[in-house]
Amino acid sequence: MQLKPIGIIHSPWTEAEGTPIQPAVARGVEGEVEVFPEFAGGLQDLEGLERIWLLYWFHRAAPARLKVVPFLDDTERGVFATRAPCRPNPIGLSSVRLRGRRGNFLLIAELDIIEGTPLLDIKPYAPWFDHFPARVPDWMEKAWAGPKVKVADTRFTIPEKK
Amino acid sequence: MQLKPIGIIHSPWTEAEGTPIQPAVARGVEGEVEVFPEFAGGLQDLEGLERIWLLYWFHRAAPARLKVVPFLDDTERGVFATRAPCRPNPIGLSSVRLRGRRGNFLLIAELDIIEGTPLLDIKPYAPWFDHFPARVPDWMEKAWAGPKVKVADTRFTIPEKK
Repeated sequence: MQLKPIGIIHSPWTEAEGTPIQPAVARGVEGEVEVFPEFAGGLQDLEGLERIWLLYWFHRAAPARLKVVPFLDDTERGVFATRAPCRPNPIGLSSVRLRGRRGNFLLIAELDIIEGTPLLDIKPYAPWFDHFPARVPDWMEKAWAGPKVKVADTRFTIPEKK
Repeated sequence: MQLKPIGIIHSPWTEAEGTPIQPAVARGVEGEVEVFPEFAGGLQDLEGLERIWLLYWFHRAAPARLKVVPFLDDTERGVFATRAPCRPNPIGLSSVRLRGRRGNFLLIAELDIIEGTPLLDIKPYAPWFDHFPARVPDWMEKAWAGPKVKVADTRFTIPEKK
């Protein structure tokens, strides 16, 4: 099971610290998805989608841990109950807003991803597939409703190689 | 970018043909997610989540194509505008219902995944991260609203190795 990058995500966020932790708290943040020319044929028909899923490789994530203290929490949680990047398979998933397309570049908004992140896949966000009412545990409700600022720090990140 | 399976998905669907194409049309279909014991520590705190994302490897998918005719359509579309499995990185994404947990096994429902599929990741489905109103193109609206039965056939599948 070998992955290949199909593109690169270009973002105003160059460091984990201060990057919004989810698209929902990244209103107004714009960027571009560069899809390598050999995959650009697969972009046909994206027009008319308001949102797309980006799947990407957490290239700056620290080695996997099974227990993490999530950004908005003070308690250790199982990593699969969180969206922390230091996962056994460090694949990220974000539903971003699609603003337009220029050839093999997609213009996107609500971007919570770091500059230079390798892109793995693009999927349409469709209500029948992805839009469910769903309860979450109390600890997660409280963390999201709490006063902490919803941006990342460096707890899950390795320093950039110079 | 090398993946490792963290578990296996156990499902009543043993062949692509006839498998529901999405969780939304797999009501009542139950199965189990077996997480390998070395990763079971990451399952803590999943209790209380109504839905989880499963990320998995489309192990039966045909080689990648950039243009596909989706299951409910008669027209070729760019693969990134569809959820077809024959993608450059054949990663599947399904929001399934979490019914419970027995040690390193999760009991799930609304299962649209084939028996024996390698599991890559589990993430919480949380409304703030994943639940957006979102327009889709007319062709997609029409395909989903149309009369075709929402189950797979073999168009994207390779025969099982005996």
